[in-house]
Amino acid sequence: MPIDPNRRSFVPTDAAGHFPLQNLPYGAFRPAPGAPVRIGVAIGDRVLDLAAVTDAGVLEGPAATTRAFHAPSINAFLGLGPDGWADARARIAALLAEGNAAWLDDPRFTAPPLHDRAAVELVLPVDIGDYTDFYASRQHATNVGTMFRGADNALLPNWRWVPIGYHGRASSIIVSGSAVRRPSGQRKAPDADAPTFGPTRQLDFELELGYVVGVGNPLGSPVSVAEAPGHIFGCVLVNDWSARDIQAWEYVPLGPFLSKNFATSISPWIVPLDALLPFRVPAPPQDPAPLAYLARQGDWALDIALDVAIATAAGRAGGRPAHRIARTNASTLYWDIAQQLAHHTVTGCNLRPGDLLATGTISGDAADSRGSMLELSWRGQEPVDVGGGEKRAFLEDGDEVVMTGTCEGHGVRLGFGEVRGTIVGA
Amino acid sequence: MPIDPNRRSFVPTDAAGHFPLQNLPYGAFRPAPGAPVRIGVAIGDRVLDLAAVTDAGVLEGPAATTRAFHAPSINAFLGLGPDGWADARARIAALLAEGNAAWLDDPRFTAPPLHDRAAVELVLPVDIGDYTDFYASRQHATNVGTMFRGADNALLPNWRWVPIGYHGRASSIIVSGSAVRRPSGQRKAPDADAPTFGPTRQLDFELELGYVVGVGNPLGSPVSVAEAPGHIFGCVLVNDWSARDIQAWEYVPLGPFLSKNFATSISPWIVPLDALLPFRVPAPPQDPAPLAYLARQGDWALDIALDVAIATAAGRAGGRPAHRIARTNASTLYWDIAQQLAHHTVTGCNLRPGDLLATGTISGDAADSRGSMLELSWRGQEPVDVGGGEKRAFLEDGDEVVMTGTCEGHGVRLGFGEVRGTIVGA
Repeated sequence: MPIDPNRRSFVPTDAAGHFPLQNLPYGAFRPAPGAPVRIGVAIGDRVLDLAAVTDAGVLEGPAATTRAFHAPSINAFLGLGPDGWADARARIAALLAEGNAAWLDDPRFTAPPLHDRAAVELVLPVDIGDYTDFYASRQHATNVGTMFRGADNALLPNWRWVPIGYHGRASSIIVSGSAVRRPSGQRKAPDADAPTFGPTRQLDFELELGYVVGVGNPLGSPVSVAEAPGHIFGCVLVNDWSARDIQAWEYVPLGPFLSKNFATSISPWIVPLDALLPFRVPAPPQDPAPLAYLARQGDWALDIALDVAIATAAGRAGGRPAHRIARTNASTLYWDIAQQLAHHTVTGCNLRPGDLLATGTISGDAADSRGSMLELSWRGQEPVDVGGGEKRAFLEDGDEVVMTGTCEGHGVRLGFGEVRGTIVGA
Repeated sequence: MPIDPNRRSFVPTDAAGHFPLQNLPYGAFRPAPGAPVRIGVAIGDRVLDLAAVTDAGVLEGPAATTRAFHAPSINAFLGLGPDGWADARARIAALLAEGNAAWLDDPRFTAPPLHDRAAVELVLPVDIGDYTDFYASRQHATNVGTMFRGADNALLPNWRWVPIGYHGRASSIIVSGSAVRRPSGQRKAPDADAPTFGPTRQLDFELELGYVVGVGNPLGSPVSVAEAPGHIFGCVLVNDWSARDIQAWEYVPLGPFLSKNFATSISPWIVPLDALLPFRVPAPPQDPAPLAYLARQGDWALDIALDVAIATAAGRAGGRPAHRIARTNASTLYWDIAQQLAHHTVTGCNLRPGDLLATGTISGDAADSRGSMLELSWRGQEPVDVGGGEKRAFLEDGDEVVMTGTCEGHGVRLGFGEVRGTIVGA
């Protein structure tokens, strides 16, 4: 479906904003404190209340879709499958189209159909069954490998063959805006005889792209690379908070555990894959060629510019905006999302609608395109300027991390909004 | 609650069986093909249909309990909390007590209250949110470490300080009796230049004890070792199927992923922790002493004898019973389940009712007390006698693995039943 930059909504959409008619991301929200959660779509600075417009009969469609819009998460909608999603997306786009605002005065409304986006409470949009995190950025894996094992052993022998991933924790995934408590755990200095227990001294963020499974696969039935995009509903931003000192001590031999499971933040709006299709670009070349089951099928790198900014407590008190510390792009990933998803299922592992997969930290080639503080400060050796004369080796209490993602091209700009979170003391 | 070996049920319970009145494990079942799933309790060779007895008014209790027994998994019942569990357990024990069978003739029954256990279809008893697997057996970690890193580096420096664990895959947890398809994936011989793709050549089982979370904790609020048992509802047997060749190639640095996520089998009956309390015994001494947050609080090792047997296709065709290849005991675990659960939450990770935690492979000191084929055959070098003159380095297509668990003492014997699964070709 080619993108049409000339289609506009009667809701004003700022050319510099994230939510034009070409985006229409889904979220779950309460219109007022204590009100039941329902599904909405972001348009400009507003939220279209899909429960309200279906209740009033203004947005028509199958009964299952109406019920899904009254559910507390997107999962019921995911269950409708690609035909149901496409039908709803077309109807919502038509409803919001320029020149079509008369329905706002429909007497059947018993609740307002449009809300100020800033005024609603956004909740976790998806009930996540399993969460998987990959390690798909060559630059990130190389940076971390260099720090932990030296430049000669930076990329492990399996890395160019296997889209390395691991199972994360689903229960502690939280929506943007939720505070993150500094975790306590075991950490051991290399020269210490024994570990100590206490608050992490190396609290970090990880800038990632997440994607939500919309269509599952039965146990024992792998999904091919060619089929993989058809299983993806849409994408979110992910901040996979990490405690590096806890991680360094615990991760051998079974991988990160407590160093990651205290919180993972996601952005509240799920951008449909349909909206991102125009921004597919070729992924970096792969050498050696992947095994046949992992061979690329078309372009599934996504041209999404990703920014990380930090607002310190002092900065906020002084009225300073968040200070950008990194900019990278999701298109730099070595393993594309179709390869990741296919690999995940090749042993027969079943994915279910609502599962979240994430790419792992996305780092580019440039020093200021690294997606974690670990890399930006090179393990704390080169503290990072966070504005106002402040520097950071790792995150401090009161720091707010703000990540954004935007796609530009074809006469359109659309985005993910933000995923943000503030560190509170242990 | 001291165990009373003299209490008996009017349902005959074999002294050599697993399900006396002192056990009363919960499961989810269909009484007939296509019938709705409901909750039942195993007693002798029968299943008490808790939906039927509450519908008839024979088992009284709060409306929430009645509703929970009509749910398709134990999760609604878990939500009632320890007081609700204790109330239901006492009422069910009274209903099944010796001399109290007259209610079987109650005219209010519209469905049979007792079923032959062998005739019902047992389904996954719990809707598992997150699955976590520990690595708590010193002997297992030492065996694996010796094979992969040599005897001098068998136990890694963190192992005696950290109850090592990792996040597993919840979606592919299946109930006993489900077939397990041999997974295909990448594996690379140490002397090969590149990996190849194909069916695993080193398919294995792992004998584990699982425990189901009954009471969750909020994100950011750790559970102490002393509080941990209060969060556990009950236990199951776990077979964490593993593909060792895939594991060896993929697991660095983020841990096992595809080598484990194709299937994990659990036994269908959740034995309440209440039933296991009499079988608490002291765990092995710990040296060095754990950090304060991990200090043991009472005896939380469980004296559960665990057996693994294999029935090959040829053996079954010849009418041979499954051949026992290993016997060990859950009480040998270095890290007890209270320590494991407390560690899991110490960074603030939230557990939810229905989460499954497992101990990792349980191996004892003796050569025939090892809980995986990897260890029993010492990486395939010493094939294991599986009866009828057959030997196994790893599992072959058609092999059925049968694990059982039993507690004996205080004049009582109770058990977990079985977790079994048969390998089918790739």
